[in-house]
Parts: sequence; C-alpha cells; structure tokens
Amino acid sequence: MSTSNGLVCFTNCLLPQEDGGLIEKDLWIDEHRGVILDSQLTFFERRERPDRIIDLGGNILRQARQQYSLTFSPGLIDIQINGAYGFDFSVYDGDDEAYRQGMKLVAEKIVETGVTSLVPTIITQQKSLYPKILDLLRPFSTSTSASLLGWHAEGPFIDMEKRGAHAPPFLLSAPDGFQSFESAYGAHNLVDSEDWLMSADGQCGVRIVTGAPEIKGVMGALNELSKRGVIFSIGHSIASSDVATAAVMQGARLITHLFNAMPQLHHRDPSIIGLLGASPHLSAPYLADAFAPSSPLVASVVSGISSEAFEYRSSPGTPATAGMSRVGSRSELHLEKGQITDMAFSRPYYDMIVDGIHSHPNSVRLAYSAFPDGCILITDAMKILDPNLRDGVHEWRDGKRFVKEGDKLYLEGTSTLAGSVVTLDKCVRNFSRFTGCSLGEAIKCATFNPAKCLGIENRKGTLRPGADADLVVLDRQGNPVSTWVRGRQVWGRIKD
Amino acid sequence: MSTSNGLVCFTNCLLPQEDGGLIEKDLWIDEHRGVILDSQLTFFERRERPDRIIDLGGNILRQARQQYSLTFSPGLIDIQINGAYGFDFSVYDGDDEAYRQGMKLVAEKIVETGVTSLVPTIITQQKSLYPKILDLLRPFSTSTSASLLGWHAEGPFIDMEKRGAHAPPFLLSAPDGFQSFESAYGAHNLVDSEDWLMSADGQCGVRIVTGAPEIKGVMGALNELSKRGVIFSIGHSIASSDVATAAVMQGARLITHLFNAMPQLHHRDPSIIGLLGASPHLSAPYLADAFAPSSPLVASVVSGISSEAFEYRSSPGTPATAGMSRVGSRSELHLEKGQITDMAFSRPYYDMIVDGIHSHPNSVRLAYSAFPDGCILITDAMKILDPNLRDGVHEWRDGKRFVKEGDKLYLEGTSTLAGSVVTLDKCVRNFSRFTGCSLGEAIKCATFNPAKCLGIENRKGTLRPGADADLVVLDRQGNPVSTWVRGRQVWGRIKD
Repeated sequence: MSTSNGLVCFTNCLLPQEDGGLIEKDLWIDEHRGVILDSQLTFFERRERPDRIIDLGGNILRQARQQYSLTFSPGLIDIQINGAYGFDFSVYDGDDEAYRQGMKLVAEKIVETGVTSLVPTIITQQKSLYPKILDLLRPFSTSTSASLLGWHAEGPFIDMEKRGAHAPPFLLSAPDGFQSFESAYGAHNLVDSEDWLMSADGQCGVRIVTGAPEIKGVMGALNELSKRGVIFSIGHSIASSDVATAAVMQGARLITHLFNAMPQLHHRDPSIIGLLGASPHLSAPYLADAFAPSSPLVASVVSGISSEAFEYRSSPGTPATAGMSRVGSRSELHLEKGQITDMAFSRPYYDMIVDGIHSHPNSVRLAYSAFPDGCILITDAMKILDPNLRDGVHEWRDGKRFVKEGDKLYLEGTSTLAGSVVTLDKCVRNFSRFTGCSLGEAIKCATFNPAKCLGIENRKGTLRPGADADLVVLDRQGNPVSTWVRGRQVWGRIKD
Repeated sequence: MSTSNGLVCFTNCLLPQEDGGLIEKDLWIDEHRGVILDSQLTFFERRERPDRIIDLGGNILRQARQQYSLTFSPGLIDIQINGAYGFDFSVYDGDDEAYRQGMKLVAEKIVETGVTSLVPTIITQQKSLYPKILDLLRPFSTSTSASLLGWHAEGPFIDMEKRGAHAPPFLLSAPDGFQSFESAYGAHNLVDSEDWLMSADGQCGVRIVTGAPEIKGVMGALNELSKRGVIFSIGHSIASSDVATAAVMQGARLITHLFNAMPQLHHRDPSIIGLLGASPHLSAPYLADAFAPSSPLVASVVSGISSEAFEYRSSPGTPATAGMSRVGSRSELHLEKGQITDMAFSRPYYDMIVDGIHSHPNSVRLAYSAFPDGCILITDAMKILDPNLRDGVHEWRDGKRFVKEGDKLYLEGTSTLAGSVVTLDKCVRNFSRFTGCSLGEAIKCATFNPAKCLGIENRKGTLRPGADADLVVLDRQGNPVSTWVRGRQVWGRIKD
C-alpha cells in the first residue's frame, strides 16, 4: 500500500450537502493523508486514478435490490457527552494514566454509533479538580478512534435554581469576572485561542463553557472568553429575555440542552428559548419599547459603564453617543444621540437531546421550525451509554446513583433527569421522525451545524475538500453501517 | 353612472398574492356588482374598457416620487373583536333597535382601520342572554360599512382556571354534549350550516365558538358543531397535549389568542401551543410511545366507545380494528389489529393579538416560524377601541371597569389583561416588524388566512375573481390610505 497513491473513490452513494440535501455523487478521499479530495480536481483535471473503488450502491443492491440507498455522511459530532462504556469524564481519582485509558476507551468504542468527533463534558466539580481534568482533556485520538476535540465544562457558574443534577456545594459565582473563570478552570486552560488550537497531533481544539449569564460576574467575562476562542453556552439558567439577549450580544453563541434546565417559554418573557424567535434586525420603534433607556441593558450599553444589575460593559472606547457600536462579538447596536436606533443580532445555536424523553416531539419541531440552521443534536449521554446495558440502578459519582429505565435516566430518589443514554445516531433518526425533516437535514444537525458553531467546519462535519475523512455510512433509516476515521474504516456492521 | 358598465381598473399598484408575495398588477372590479373581476377575461378576451382607471402609482408619485408604493389589499378581517367606538357586542339591555344601531356604528366606523369584515365576539354571558344576542348578530352590513360576518361566542364553556376577564358565575360545563350547546346558545342559532349561511343580504355567515375541550361534555360536542358549520376554537383552556390533539382530531380548527389564557409551552407537555409543532404525519414507533394503547385517547378511538376521561367518540360504524379511520373532521387514524399505525393530522389555525403587549415579539416570531400558514391576526379589541380615546379608567360591564394605559388594558385592581385597544392595521405593521416578514406576508395573516380558516376564501380576504370588492389601499408602511367595500370607496385618509 505504501507504493499506492492512496486514492479511494466511493461511488453509488448519497452525499449530504450543507443545505440539508442528499445528492448522488462520488466521494474521493486520500487514505494516506486521511482527507477528503476535490473529485473534480483529482479525477477530471489531474486525471488521477483511484487505487480502490468502493461501490456502495452495488453493496446494498445485493441486499435490498435498491440502488443508492446508502448515505456517506460526515462522521457525527457530539458536543455534549459526559461519558460512555463505563467511563465518566467527570471522575478523576489522581491517576492520569487511568484517566487517559478511559478517554481512549470511549474514543475507540463510540465509533459504532457513527460518532467520529466529540467534546467530552465535565459537570460541576470540586474547584480544585478542574485545572487537572481540563488539562488532560486536550484534543486526543488514535488511528482507529474518534477524536476528542477538547472539553466542555458544564458549570460551575450555573444557577442554583436550575442546577439539575449538579452538586450545589460546588456551584460558583464569578465576582472577579474573567479572572474567576481562570481561577476555576486554570489559566493555562484558557490561554489565547491560537496557541491552544495548535494541539500536539494537529487536532482541532475546542472549549465550551456552559454557564448562567445572570450569575454575578459571568456577563462581564463573556467578551474575554469569546476572544480566547471559548464558546460560551447559556444553560442551567433563569435568564430573562433581556439578560439572555445581552449575553448573546456579549458573545454567547450556543444554548445548552434547549428546554431543559431553563424557564419555560413565557409569552411575555420568552427568556432563553425565545432567543430562537429573536429578529435579526429590530427596528427603532420596537427597541424604544423593549429596550427603554431606563432598562439596565440599554443604560449600561449607552453609557458605556458597567451596570450593577448586569455587570457587563461595552468595549472600552465605544462611541456611546452616535454611530455604530460593536457590542460583544456577535451583535451591533446603532446609536444616535444616546438612543438605540437599530440592532443587528445573531441568534445563538441551540442543542437538544432528542431522545423522546427530554422534550416532547412537538417542542422539538417548534424549535427546529423557528431556527433550522441553529439546531444541534447532542446525546448528553452518561457513562453507562452502551447499547447492551440493562435497566436498573447504577453508580454515578459522589456517592449518588441513577436509575435507567429504557432511554430514561433519573437521579435515584428524585424525578430529576440526569442526562441520557441515547446514542447520537438514534437522535438523528428520532429527529427526522419527530420533525418530518429528511435524513439529510437531520444529519446536518449532527455534523455541519455543530462544526459551524465550533468554528471547525473546514475540518469536521463536512465533505469539503481538505477536511478530515471522518465518515459514517448510514442506511436509509439512518442506522450506521460503517465508520471511517481519517480515511480508514474503523468499524462496520457488516464486515467487508 | 347607471348607463356605465361599472368597470373600474386600478393600475400601478401592488397586489398581495395568496403565497404572501406582492406583485405589480392591475386590479379590475365591477362597481355595480361590487365584485372583483378576472382581468385577463375582462380586458384581453372580452376587450371591455373600464369606465374609470384609477392610477395609484401616479397618486403616490406626486407625494413621494416613488412608484408602486401603494398596495391594494383585500380588506382586513378581524375574527375576534368585542366592540369599538363605545359599543360592546356583549352588552344587550333589551332594546333590539339600540343594539342594531351599535352594530351599525361599529360596522361603519371600523373601515378607517382597513377592516372590511369582522366577527363580533361576545364574552361569557348570563345564559339567558345568548339566544337573543346571537340571533341579533346575524350577518349585517350597509352599503358603506364593513360586514359583520356572524358571531364569535367566547365562552361560556371555558376553564375556570384560565377564565381571564370572564365572569366565573356564568361559566358552564356541557353535561349533555351538543345539547348543552344548543341550550346555551339557542338551538336556532346552531341550525345546519347551509340554511344559516344563506343570510338575508347574501353575506357570509360565520359562527365561532371558543371553548375548553377538557370541560365536561365539550369534546363530545365538537364533531356535531363541526358538522353544523361552527368553527370550534380552543381557548381559555388548560388542555394537555393529548387532549388538545384529540380536540383537533374531533374537529377543532382554531386556537384563540395563542399564548394567552392557556398553559405555557412545557417542553414535556407542550399543550395547546405545542399543536403548532405537531407533525402532519406521525409514524408508528412514535405513536406507540405517545399514544400507548393504555392512553385514554387511543383507547377511546380504538374501541370506538366514549371514554369517561375525554368524553368523545369516533364516528359510529368506524372500523376499529383495521384500515383507515376518519376521526372527527380533520384527522385520520390508520389502524391495524387495534394498533394505530399512522396518523394524518391537520394543525389548527391560531390567532394572536400582536399589540406588543399580549405576547413578546420573540414569541410571536416563534409561533409564526413554526406554522406560517396557520397564523391569523386579531385585535380582541374592547369597546373603547377608538384612535382618539385618552388613557384612564373606563366603564366596562357588570359594574367592572378597566384601565387603559397606551395599548395596555387591565381589569381595574388586577393585572389581568382584558382584551386590547390595538387596531388591526397596526397589528399588521407590528407583525411585519416583529417577525421580519414582508408586508405581503403580514397582510396574508389578516386576510387570506382568516378567510381560509372560516371557509370563505372565495368571497373575502382574497382578490380572486368573483370575490367581494372589499379592499384597502395601504402605503409602504402598511398604513391605510383608503377603504373600499363592495367596489365603492367608503373612507379615505386623503379625499380624492
């Protein structure tokens, strides 16, 4: 094989497009470099011939007498997963090697669910453990495993009132703003994005923080987090519409497990969920009402000073009396004579656990209808994620236990949902069924949308030339048939 | 004029289309018959010439140096309005003539808001008053007025828990099903649709009942109401997702003032609001979970017998064990061996008071995104609706008073919203602003959508040939410039 050109052409398959469509097209990859190729350039212009042609249509023809039934999708990306196969990313007992073995175990086994990239999530911890665990959770993969892209710290800056299964004694506020985040997670884990992104093995480096913008000091830290390449996600929060809007204007670009651990949609204060309905362009008359000069939101932006109530500020030097003011990293306010005249607003991405338990199918469809391009599927899976595990009581951590009943997972002795045991490929199938969207559109919510949210859409979650050849072959129902990482098949339902 | 052919051609204007678009096109009407003509047929095939050509483009050119700025829209339709200009449709003191004068007053003045059709709404009454008032509220219009299309009875079969401003002593349950409705509204007001629709002056006859399907006996009456041509609208209700779904399957085709007087969207039981996200085609695996055989909904449909819990039944003679079963008037269940295998489901229309007070703009946009074709704008206006009225305390009825503060209207001494004082043309402008939709799309929600819900889309709310020439000219911002009923201008901001 070392003398071959390494070119593989997959033919007779459907390829998901970035608009949610599925079209019949060949896919070329370079299995030496582990990347996707530009088929036009490779075949038609350079006239190169593949070493191997893999006919996915022929494959299925023999089984089902139906052509073009297999979809060759970018590998799925799970941006919120607490553990799997018995390993919990949130449990570290001082043995680095054991922890690394756990990471490897998850990365190698998870490919059977079609997942080729994941962001390990740690829930609220004892403060002293964060710097160590987050340091261990640098990007990681083996030649036959999915990629751990970095970390997702869910907590500790969350709201007691919406703590869910998080341990109350470990919750924190951020009285010193960004410094409080450095103090909690370790300053070396929040260094400037570029250094951090260039990880040892060339993997993407991704950091996500789920927090509540209404917690003291959090709003003031969002701009700096955003500058350091950290994705701030609103979650476990009771933020009002005004506070949630301000958080997005300060740089928040994601909502964690939409519907869960947040206020219900109240029609006069639709809060975090309502952000999905926020207009990208609110005109002056409405702003005059909704953002009256007396509101803390407007007052602090217009005056350019920090407000006690929200504790955030516009960028230093912002002209506060006229012209256009860039607020945070994603929004703009247009000011004239101290009055807001217009606002450009980017709605945040939102992720959902589509296991049929965390949210009613009608709720899932409502959210998706409102903002399809922002939709991201996650598992939020617990360490017991494993297709073969039986129902019953299982150990968790800190002496707590949870109960598994089918796809339901409760904290023992309560009715509090504690994550899930659903696999991401099943979420894709559920999602298509609940919303009536096509398989291609559902795939997009587990590939391109999360990649775009994370800013890695040229490397992962896409079939763009140059992207990693992390792929999953799905049958018509969306069940994984085989999984490929960096150009090599690492798992298959039916072995070749 | 009696010797003229009565043909009028409006030119240089934008016409709203039924898909929400606005296109530049001439509109031909016959002012003798008061109907819209097929311009293709009239001009090109019959080669008829108009008596008059009204150049709307030229008109605005002189004012604003901008062509095609005027939109010639079907007149607006308000399907929920409690009164205006001091007259309250819910107040009848025994003087028929005085009541009729009130109807006439509203019908003649309301055209200044662009409204050419309305459905007078009466809130919960003393039972004895219904037969009389509803009888008076037969379709009515004069040659210079908007058309009262019939009546909308909001109550008395509503839920105490969501009664809003309705008087608790007058609320009723319906222990005898449809007979209870006849007993309340008067049997002669619920006679079979066709007789009733052929009203004296050839106007459309429309009857709407807002009620709570969870109230004893209501669910069992929906099928019969639907057969009699009465639109049942879910409102002032705490119906769960299952009950609300069952109500739609039994014939409910509207939701009254979405978001108000109903449960908030709970993600695990999204209730009435969640109907906007209901899939038109739920497949078997999900039905197996959501509509388990043990659920009252499925049990009563499958067995074909009335259930205590819901008190409705499938049509007599429905094959309950296999094949396709028509349930109610709008939905179908596919059954096999007593199991539901598939369901076709039509989402109900929903109306909203888009005054910026009853619902947050983000909520409005969420709903509209989820189901644009079901969206209907209403005013739910109180008798004090009148652009010139000042803020302050006003008399209502039953010795109660309400407080007007700008567009806000509260029951005195409470924080309960008591209808609104917004005009429908302002709702159209608000809606476009809140959702970012075009003026044409907003117009559709106040013309074609309500007409379609009421089943009168060939007569009202449309520019189809043969429809009544009830029209409103709107400027670019959506402000009424002139209003026309049955081919004649009856109001104008700038007199010709």
